[in-house]
Amino acid sequence: MHSAILLKAEVKALQAANEQKKRRERKRKRRIMQGGSLSVQEGEDILQSAKVDAQFSIIAILNPASQTPLSIGCLLFPGFQALDAFGPLDALNVLSYSTPLTLSLIGASLSPISTHPAAHPSAIGQTIVPTHTFSSAPPLDVLLIPGGYGTRGSLPGLEDAIVFIRARFPELKYMITVCTGARLAARAGVLEGRRATTNKRAWLDTKEMAPGVKWVAHARWVVDGKCWTSAGVSAGIDVVLAWVEEVYGKEKAGQVAGVMEYERHEDSRWDPFAVACGLPEDE
Amino acid sequence: MHSAILLKAEVKALQAANEQKKRRERKRKRRIMQGGSLSVQEGEDILQSAKVDAQFSIIAILNPASQTPLSIGCLLFPGFQALDAFGPLDALNVLSYSTPLTLSLIGASLSPISTHPAAHPSAIGQTIVPTHTFSSAPPLDVLLIPGGYGTRGSLPGLEDAIVFIRARFPELKYMITVCTGARLAARAGVLEGRRATTNKRAWLDTKEMAPGVKWVAHARWVVDGKCWTSAGVSAGIDVVLAWVEEVYGKEKAGQVAGVMEYERHEDSRWDPFAVACGLPEDE
Repeated sequence: MHSAILLKAEVKALQAANEQKKRRERKRKRRIMQGGSLSVQEGEDILQSAKVDAQFSIIAILNPASQTPLSIGCLLFPGFQALDAFGPLDALNVLSYSTPLTLSLIGASLSPISTHPAAHPSAIGQTIVPTHTFSSAPPLDVLLIPGGYGTRGSLPGLEDAIVFIRARFPELKYMITVCTGARLAARAGVLEGRRATTNKRAWLDTKEMAPGVKWVAHARWVVDGKCWTSAGVSAGIDVVLAWVEEVYGKEKAGQVAGVMEYERHEDSRWDPFAVACGLPEDE
Repeated sequence: MHSAILLKAEVKALQAANEQKKRRERKRKRRIMQGGSLSVQEGEDILQSAKVDAQFSIIAILNPASQTPLSIGCLLFPGFQALDAFGPLDALNVLSYSTPLTLSLIGASLSPISTHPAAHPSAIGQTIVPTHTFSSAPPLDVLLIPGGYGTRGSLPGLEDAIVFIRARFPELKYMITVCTGARLAARAGVLEGRRATTNKRAWLDTKEMAPGVKWVAHARWVVDGKCWTSAGVSAGIDVVLAWVEEVYGKEKAGQVAGVMEYERHEDSRWDPFAVACGLPEDE
């Protein structure tokens, strides 16, 4: 379940040491296929290697201190929707009480970034401090992309955010978008040909903007490969808890939701908001 | 419904003008009680005054532009829980698209304030920029108090936050606490003798800490006079939407929840988390 992620560093550390072993194994394999046999010592070496690998796996899973932290990044831009980011982020905050994670809040510069939407000049908002810029962000396993009014139009720096998504997508294990964050991912071209969803009030607009994406109208969230896209605003909490379940197991997802006193929507197709918006049935 | 709040400024503006009128009315009343009579002009003056007052009320209710913005404050302290604040705050952000509000994010100083919990040194967190200090905060109609690990122990500045709550409580129209934010309100003494609720994992502790409060175990939120207290973390979204319904009507609360794609819990007694924590039945 979570071995792929959690053992990443252990695998890397073992890779160099294993390289020589593999060469020896290939050599032995060739010898066996050619009708040869293994010495007792060679057989014991193989058993010992397998045991060491298994111990590494068990230690990594059972002992959080030995886990390599997952490197999570959250994209921030002027006019991002507060709950799009802070629903998932607080789920990750709670997860990090028991599971090693690192978090980078990534913006165009290190200046604080406001949720204030240009479309509503008299609206209230909050201002968040980023930890990294597009150029200083560390390697990422997970990129979280919130939506909001700021995803529309051509705000200064938004093109840089899109370039950042495009550049970092190949290294990601998971990309998670919330609400109209999917529009930024679509503009970066990384959702092309994939199934995805977005805010239901923006669905028709978004479909028109990015016709190469297989937009799903009725969905709380959609998973296609490493792309996890979700519906509007509070759907970000559900998609991240579903992701926690995928990576760390159902029990951990339940624990995080319990600490948040949040009743999860566990059915990714649950979507009364698509119905309320009169969106067409999916094919 | 919302006249008490929305007409506050109009009432104030009229008070000075009305003072002279009242003195005249009292004089007229005395005259009538003493068997005297009103002139035609005096009768017309009374009718005209009543009409002007009624027009002021109607204008204030129908035309948002004439509404005095509600002054909302949110208390911030190191180790506050991110979603405790940002669930309610994003509901208010959305409300502010159509309804005039002002927001003050109030901390011990203007330095950015981190959600990072001292209890979990390796946990991730986010950092928010306050707009006001305890001494520079404007007059408030509503004070929102999030919870989090930071409400426990004796962090520097926490005593000042408690003093701030105590000092500002009398002027408030509404105080809204989320999660263990109720502990700060209880420590400020403003919940004494009132019904209130809090995070269900902290309920027993909190009850012991503040035995003078009538703690309700099974509740998503509790209203007692102007005190709206809610359960853990995500319950803040429900209590604020319930408050929006109380102040601005059910339709507006539904609109805000719809924009957030959030399925409200509208029953304040809904609380599977109290059940999961094995809390005793309420008397």
